[in-house]
Amino acid sequence: MTRNPHTFIGCDAEYAESGIVIFGAPFDSTTSYRPGARFGCSAIRNESFGIETFSPYQDRDLAYMRIFDGGDLDLPFGSPEAALDAIAAQADEILGDGKIPVMLGGEHLVTLGAVRSAVRRHPDLRIVHFDAHADLRDDYLGVKLSHACVIRRCHELVGDGRIFQFGIRSGDGAEFEWGSEHVKTCRFGFSRLADAVHEIGDAPVYVTVDLDVLDPSCFPGTGTPEAGGVSFVSLLWALKTALRLNVVAMDFTELSPVYDASGASTALACKILREALLLLGGRNT
Amino acid sequence: MTRNPHTFIGCDAEYAESGIVIFGAPFDSTTSYRPGARFGCSAIRNESFGIETFSPYQDRDLAYMRIFDGGDLDLPFGSPEAALDAIAAQADEILGDGKIPVMLGGEHLVTLGAVRSAVRRHPDLRIVHFDAHADLRDDYLGVKLSHACVIRRCHELVGDGRIFQFGIRSGDGAEFEWGSEHVKTCRFGFSRLADAVHEIGDAPVYVTVDLDVLDPSCFPGTGTPEAGGVSFVSLLWALKTALRLNVVAMDFTELSPVYDASGASTALACKILREALLLLGGRNT
Amino acid sequence: MTRNPHTFIGCDAEYAESGIVIFGAPFDSTTSYRPGARFGCSAIRNESFGIETFSPYQDRDLAYMRIFDGGDLDLPFGSPEAALDAIAAQADEILGDGKIPVMLGGEHLVTLGAVRSAVRRHPDLRIVHFDAHADLRDDYLGVKLSHACVIRRCHELVGDGRIFQFGIRSGDGAEFEWGSEHVKTCRFGFSRLADAVHEIGDAPVYVTVDLDVLDPSCFPGTGTPEAGGVSFVSLLWALKTALRLNVVAMDFTELSPVYDASGASTALACKILREALLLLGGRNT
Amino acid sequence: MTRNPHTFIGCDAEYAESGIVIFGAPFDSTTSYRPGARFGCSAIRNESFGIETFSPYQDRDLAYMRIFDGGDLDLPFGSPEAALDAIAAQADEILGDGKIPVMLGGEHLVTLGAVRSAVRRHPDLRIVHFDAHADLRDDYLGVKLSHACVIRRCHELVGDGRIFQFGIRSGDGAEFEWGSEHVKTCRFGFSRLADAVHEIGDAPVYVTVDLDVLDPSCFPGTGTPEAGGVSFVSLLWALKTALRLNVVAMDFTELSPVYDASGASTALACKILREALLLLGGRNT
Amino acid sequence: MTRNPHTFIGCDAEYAESGIVIFGAPFDSTTSYRPGARFGCSAIRNESFGIETFSPYQDRDLAYMRIFDGGDLDLPFGSPEAALDAIAAQADEILGDGKIPVMLGGEHLVTLGAVRSAVRRHPDLRIVHFDAHADLRDDYLGVKLSHACVIRRCHELVGDGRIFQFGIRSGDGAEFEWGSEHVKTCRFGFSRLADAVHEIGDAPVYVTVDLDVLDPSCFPGTGTPEAGGVSFVSLLWALKTALRLNVVAMDFTELSPVYDASGASTALACKILREALLLLGGRNT
Amino acid sequence: MTRNPHTFIGCDAEYAESGIVIFGAPFDSTTSYRPGARFGCSAIRNESFGIETFSPYQDRDLAYMRIFDGGDLDLPFGSPEAALDAIAAQADEILGDGKIPVMLGGEHLVTLGAVRSAVRRHPDLRIVHFDAHADLRDDYLGVKLSHACVIRRCHELVGDGRIFQFGIRSGDGAEFEWGSEHVKTCRFGFSRLADAVHEIGDAPVYVTVDLDVLDPSCFPGTGTPEAGGVSFVSLLWALKTALRLNVVAMDFTELSPVYDASGASTALACKILREALLLLGGRNT
Repeated sequence: MTRNPHTFIGCDAEYAESGIVIFGAPFDSTTSYRPGARFGCSAIRNESFGIETFSPYQDRDLAYMRIFDGGDLDLPFGSPEAALDAIAAQADEILGDGKIPVMLGGEHLVTLGAVRSAVRRHPDLRIVHFDAHADLRDDYLGVKLSHACVIRRCHELVGDGRIFQFGIRSGDGAEFEWGSEHVKTCRFGFSRLADAVHEIGDAPVYVTVDLDVLDPSCFPGTGTPEAGGVSFVSLLWALKTALRLNVVAMDFTELSPVYDASGASTALACKILREALLLLGGRNT
Repeated sequence: MTRNPHTFIGCDAEYAESGIVIFGAPFDSTTSYRPGARFGCSAIRNESFGIETFSPYQDRDLAYMRIFDGGDLDLPFGSPEAALDAIAAQADEILGDGKIPVMLGGEHLVTLGAVRSAVRRHPDLRIVHFDAHADLRDDYLGVKLSHACVIRRCHELVGDGRIFQFGIRSGDGAEFEWGSEHVKTCRFGFSRLADAVHEIGDAPVYVTVDLDVLDPSCFPGTGTPEAGGVSFVSLLWALKTALRLNVVAMDFTELSPVYDASGASTALACKILREALLLLGGRNT
Repeated sequence: MTRNPHTFIGCDAEYAESGIVIFGAPFDSTTSYRPGARFGCSAIRNESFGIETFSPYQDRDLAYMRIFDGGDLDLPFGSPEAALDAIAAQADEILGDGKIPVMLGGEHLVTLGAVRSAVRRHPDLRIVHFDAHADLRDDYLGVKLSHACVIRRCHELVGDGRIFQFGIRSGDGAEFEWGSEHVKTCRFGFSRLADAVHEIGDAPVYVTVDLDVLDPSCFPGTGTPEAGGVSFVSLLWALKTALRLNVVAMDFTELSPVYDASGASTALACKILREALLLLGGRNT
Repeated sequence: MTRNPHTFIGCDAEYAESGIVIFGAPFDSTTSYRPGARFGCSAIRNESFGIETFSPYQDRDLAYMRIFDGGDLDLPFGSPEAALDAIAAQADEILGDGKIPVMLGGEHLVTLGAVRSAVRRHPDLRIVHFDAHADLRDDYLGVKLSHACVIRRCHELVGDGRIFQFGIRSGDGAEFEWGSEHVKTCRFGFSRLADAVHEIGDAPVYVTVDLDVLDPSCFPGTGTPEAGGVSFVSLLWALKTALRLNVVAMDFTELSPVYDASGASTALACKILREALLLLGGRNT
Repeated sequence: MTRNPHTFIGCDAEYAESGIVIFGAPFDSTTSYRPGARFGCSAIRNESFGIETFSPYQDRDLAYMRIFDGGDLDLPFGSPEAALDAIAAQADEILGDGKIPVMLGGEHLVTLGAVRSAVRRHPDLRIVHFDAHADLRDDYLGVKLSHACVIRRCHELVGDGRIFQFGIRSGDGAEFEWGSEHVKTCRFGFSRLADAVHEIGDAPVYVTVDLDVLDPSCFPGTGTPEAGGVSFVSLLWALKTALRLNVVAMDFTELSPVYDASGASTALACKILREALLLLGGRNT
Repeated sequence: MTRNPHTFIGCDAEYAESGIVIFGAPFDSTTSYRPGARFGCSAIRNESFGIETFSPYQDRDLAYMRIFDGGDLDLPFGSPEAALDAIAAQADEILGDGKIPVMLGGEHLVTLGAVRSAVRRHPDLRIVHFDAHADLRDDYLGVKLSHACVIRRCHELVGDGRIFQFGIRSGDGAEFEWGSEHVKTCRFGFSRLADAVHEIGDAPVYVTVDLDVLDPSCFPGTGTPEAGGVSFVSLLWALKTALRLNVVAMDFTELSPVYDASGASTALACKILREALLLLGGRNT
């Protein structure tokens, strides 16, 4: 009798043979409003058996791809710096082995750990950022390592003009003002995504998807639901566009399953992850 | 003092004078993911007093129609064949009396019982199928009578080219492949519905509505919510189109009220049922 | 050490210096289906700290406006007449001081209290009414003061042709028939709003927003969710249009937070209120 | 095909042959804290099929008794006086036919309607009152007809020394002071119940059970849960004791099913009702 | 990078070195009231990381024991006979290897599969049965393989006088009558458990724990909550007594986590399982 | 028009005249299992209007006491050290003014901030600790400032033999071993509380109540529910005993209202706080 596997559906390849590696970063200590994103990554894994491996959107099947699911990291709650170190170490290993890390949050701060790793390997990194929130604060109640500051911290690593934001519909006035000089922000939707893809060209790209970019009607399971977001179909289209880029790492954050007892938010996250994995993995075929 | 009535709102006519007969099929034993559809039919009846009998979409009123609500069948959980027999017997009685049965599920497998009855009386039966899932598996873990196989079983009764699917956005690769040869599948929406209506012409039709064809944003109360579905208004339009056909029987399945504590899913199901009854009943007026 | 303030976010000005005054009317005794709207006003206040004071839709910030939040009235449940008296007295004081009252319900009946006050001061008052329900019944089970009759009661105060309804998609046949002669009803959406704004011109206007005008997909947190409603973006656009009128008082009713455990409905209500306050307050700037 | 019955489990006798008559009073307009008791009576009826008709506590079976379930009254929300009139009329009819009314609330105010009827027929009526709350206020925010005043209103009908309260653990200081002179209050439990039974002797008795007398651990489904209550077994024992009296009418109030998603509160209410019916009906056997 | 383990806390030994083997039987197709027990076994595994491996009740630690967790079986919903075959096959393998199977349900019917296996190996098997329900029906709506009949089916395998029931407080009259001649039933609690242990002596024993034997106050997360049950501490004491017997197999069934959103029921199940494993594993030390 | 107060019920005295000062510490960043305790303090304040100011247990009334409620601190999530500094500063101010701080958590780590302040002023401080968990870990995943380590950190401040634990029923083996040498632990209940009170005598005491000491049956609203806890009545008795000591500061932590949708946990916390305030304030009367 052998131990039962416990992976995202269809992602049961061995590490050595896989070009894509999933791992979870169950951390939400800096969430300022409603916590719970720590349960996002395990919920996605647990509920993925409710969807199919085949995508009728792409006519491709996860069952025929080679993806490894490394499970969740053990992260110390209450210690953001230690958590980011552990995340960066995991990303370092995966990137060092020539594979693409796909991280599942957790809150959005976890992105900083993976970006630190990616920028060490790719100094000319671009960041494509889907989110309801600008996340450009310099600090939050005096704290620099907060989910509300994560893209500001990323900017310190990649510099002006290399971060492209989409779907943004919340932030304080100072964030939007600062952002207008240092990052490229597309409010409310994806209208300027094709331009950004053209501008980025062949440069290495980190794609970070804060799932609260989605409208709360289809994705209420998040800590800070913001009305006026994008639909599932729009996000799917945006991923089809963005994942044609030279993506070196990716993440999905801010699913907080406890806030959606229907399970529809988790199910949507599973489908978006399936589609993204199929897009990432199918680029060479 | 007389016993209190307990029917869907406005459906308190006597059986003999009614052209349409509602009954419930509270069964969900083969549901593979999240059960609860057994409570769909009673929830629709209980919550229907929260809506009006008048439709502002059609300017018609259920209060002026003659519809009988026969309550729910007593179905043995764990014994699909016995449940299907009981459903077919109920449909036989209604069809035999020259009335239109409108069955409320329950899981989608219950459709097979009513289709068996309808096809005995109408050997040239066509099936119009609204659903998120193809339901075309030959078996599910070795079991032939499963909600995931129900349309495949129906196909064995009606044959090639007589099943028209709409809204499909989930299934395994084999289902879509098999389906491309034996049924007519319209993915994601209703774009080919008008064509189907034209093709069907005057033939007798069974309309089966798996309510998870709706997007989980407006209908999270179902066992397997699939993002990317149709809106309430789209489904209403599709019913207006399909119910001009020679409909001999109809069903609505897969409302699982426990997954939507807001009650919005049940309320939507009540409204869709009201509109469908008004459309069915108003055809001769 | 001073006592902590408890106001809607950014609305901590002194009464004397404020042109807009918020107050809550936590009453839902006449709700016929599912109660809970009594908790709407306090939920909006409590959860408002989850949104920003800055609006990316208007590039304006509540932090730079002068708005007073007077908290919630103490209303006697089970005694609608006494509750309406208390509401009218509060509105009288605010209107008498030359300020705009913005009332947060509570069920929709509370509107009658504020309209009674507004019409005393502005006999030529018009009412712009956003709602899923016509609310034009003459009585409900013999009761005249019911949420289902509130606009009929308002009509008795302002007369024919002065009430403009939008988004209506539920009512009994008699309501729609009566309404066609006495009020101007736009079903399902806002298609005739621009015409109404033009017709109203400079007349004083009371704007009443029953939040169930929104589709339950984005606003399930209400007692009687009605499928087929408007989106957040549509409502926002409609408010931008309507609040250019000479608005003398306003209300938002029928948030019932207990029916949406995700909090998305309350969050949406907070944003709509923020946008409306910015629109109201920004008219002279 | 005949219409389906919809009664409390096992209570499907004809009215004429029944000695006990159940009816529901779905009213909660005066609830001052959290409404929802209006759904108590229908929840008990709907969920009763989850329990058995046989009682292992009494070795008796409801299936062998003759009880009529008359369904729920249509009560006008927002108009307590009209609601109480309708309740009293229903109780008058049942008492006039020589039967015992068993009313299911609804909030506790509904008791006043039935007590008005009972005291007309039995001027020497005693009231046995199980509750967490004293309900002895003279008014609540100026309103006399409030659930918080119901026993005070009953006292006006039956006079000093004829009301016996048990389980009381909440009230304001004035209530306890007034109560000490006019009613007999046993705090926290049933320690003086046997004495009261002895004192009452053969006098006609109205038994009113506010189910929040139970501890919230076993009965969280109520508007105002009060820690420190009695257990199911204690309440069962107390009913065994009290129902040996000459009970002429009875009620169970304040189940608010929405506050207990587990259904355990409703299931407990069903069992307590079954036990009470068996005790009432078995007195002559 | 190796695949992450996914076992009950502390149960990560290899199969070969383990004396106890856990496996899950996620099946609930015959549940007649509220389904959901299929999610019990995975919930116990997922949530077990919220408890400690050390027991302050026994001063023992799971971390020092050798237990294998084999994960959940893939069982076909809707086909009870096939599910029971799969369960029996799993139990056969474990018993054949000289180990003790500890099965996690699922509904109570799954017990029959494991008992079939145990009785083949131990023809003189006794069954110790903790439950709220007698489960002694001969059939349920004509179906023999139902959770409501499971102990009756077991009786057909082990014969008269070999089944000892405790905590029983629900059943129909016929069950209690039949039971009085064929099994030994202790109603409501464990008062006769010590006698039973003495009577059983050294015979091989199957212990089946339907967790709804617990009071719904501490265990609301089950399909059919029955008031008047035992406390956690009582059940723990009963297990300490019963597990001194020659236990050859054991199960825990009927946790239905969806009905207890607080998670307390699942957490309790985790602790009871920990204590049982420590008791089973510590017998030789 | 004046700004509305927002305090715990009956606690609206001015700061200067008050001997007891309530404040909230909404922090839960180090919670390792299920977060949400940050909402405990505001839930207690918001829901307190559902209880009375009068206690039938003590025949005293909060309305006649002088208590100030200072609202909640603004604490930076993700930065435990900064949060503890802010808490200690608040406690310093209150203790410096000769008043008793009563802090509402938040997770249990917040206790450390207030204990740091208390021990500066009272170097011979004793700690009376009610909890399900020992909280004696030296670190948790390498982090020293964690809720799982809070009493270990307190021990570093007060030394051996000065911490008295009650109700403890969870911890790892090392915690219990270490605890047996350095603190006085009473497992499961309060059996040794009277002894501890006698031993402590007149020394200054900090009383910390982790509300998960209560059984999850009456208090499911907490992050880590542990079966086998104490009842409300037991805790009330224990407080009556402990609050006769020379209490200089007190706290209540770990209410996580989101996990108990019934509101019973929050209501219980409100009552326990009322009783504690009456006991603290009534010591001199």
